[in-house]
Amino acid sequence: MKGKLIVFEGVEGGGKSSQIQRLLTWLEAHPDICDLQDKGEIAQLVLTREPGGTDLGQALRSLLLDASKGERLCNSAELLLYSADRAQHVTETIQPALAAGHWVLCDRFVDSTLAYQGYGRGLSLETIGQLNQTATGGLQADLTLWLQLDVRTGLQRSRRRGQLDRMEQADLAFHQRVQAGFEALARKAPERIVAINAEATEVDVAHQIQAVIASKLATWYPALTAS
Amino acid sequence: MKGKLIVFEGVEGGGKSSQIQRLLTWLEAHPDICDLQDKGEIAQLVLTREPGGTDLGQALRSLLLDASKGERLCNSAELLLYSADRAQHVTETIQPALAAGHWVLCDRFVDSTLAYQGYGRGLSLETIGQLNQTATGGLQADLTLWLQLDVRTGLQRSRRRGQLDRMEQADLAFHQRVQAGFEALARKAPERIVAINAEATEVDVAHQIQAVIASKLATWYPALTAS
Repeated sequence: MKGKLIVFEGVEGGGKSSQIQRLLTWLEAHPDICDLQDKGEIAQLVLTREPGGTDLGQALRSLLLDASKGERLCNSAELLLYSADRAQHVTETIQPALAAGHWVLCDRFVDSTLAYQGYGRGLSLETIGQLNQTATGGLQADLTLWLQLDVRTGLQRSRRRGQLDRMEQADLAFHQRVQAGFEALARKAPERIVAINAEATEVDVAHQIQAVIASKLATWYPALTAS
Repeated sequence: MKGKLIVFEGVEGGGKSSQIQRLLTWLEAHPDICDLQDKGEIAQLVLTREPGGTDLGQALRSLLLDASKGERLCNSAELLLYSADRAQHVTETIQPALAAGHWVLCDRFVDSTLAYQGYGRGLSLETIGQLNQTATGGLQADLTLWLQLDVRTGLQRSRRRGQLDRMEQADLAFHQRVQAGFEALARKAPERIVAINAEATEVDVAHQIQAVIASKLATWYPALTAS
């Protein structure tokens, strides 16, 4: 049985890292949900992120996000580095995990590139769509959880967390364009992108996410839920 | 007056590095050719290469060519990293130099990606064409000097030179596909790509290149050569 790719998206400060960890813990505590024993193999949980889900990706993450290194990075090189990170990530990490029946929980994926480099930087959405296709070979997330919160609130949370990376340092107008991008993407693909109210408490956000996962199981595994 | 972009292409061991240096020395000794005094500014010579013509490019060159690091690099990530290197190179180095009226001598450019990743690795030529467009913004070389020699001869020369990088280590069949790629590209764009017999002596190859440059001047600077 093919695994599932669950992606977390949204502007800075929405709590993606915490919520991915919480979902991982919850799934581990509920092996009936994703430890689907199929042909004797037990599905596992893989937690990963973009950029940086591979050794190559770690090197690229540093080039992309370290504020000191990236200051002269041009927009098209930035876009192409995110795409290179994704290509290696899909080939080396995500595809083999899905083929083995694992669940992959991924912090950011194709929608971030459309939102940040497309809506945010103003690069062509068509070009980014082609790059996403080249990088993923057509692989799509089974579910994208969009952690939605006010841009200012998110940036304040990021600042409280400490040192800001190169993307977080961009101005408010940039982050507002990114937010509008996520809104547009969610409107275009309501069957794939589910909005989560990330202004709620951390526990409440976790419950919203668990409810969405539970609601998907009947669609993902009809044979299991029918029996 | 806009500068000129002169690119050196070809399989391994064709003597690109030596010939770029020789052309640089020859042009410096003949300031009448490219030190075209225009509006009081004197054109300069910029020697650069792909990958690695910028700080970012140096980091990417290491990821792409160091044999130990690159062994798990997938084909599409390789392609996208070369493209990211090119995007930054064009924006940061080549375009500003050309705008200032300088001559840019560049070791490899868009044709290498078509030959190595397209014909060599078997990736889509159409996709690579789109990536080259994204990376260059449509900038084309004024002249591409294709240093043509037998693939086996070239690889023997590379081996004599010492440690082989990741691309040089690829098998003979790969390098033969790359060679066939350069041949096909040269057939398609005879006005832009000039074949140089790189099996001749180093001095003779340098003379061939000087003759090609001299023959281009009338086209490039009609006002100057007419007077």
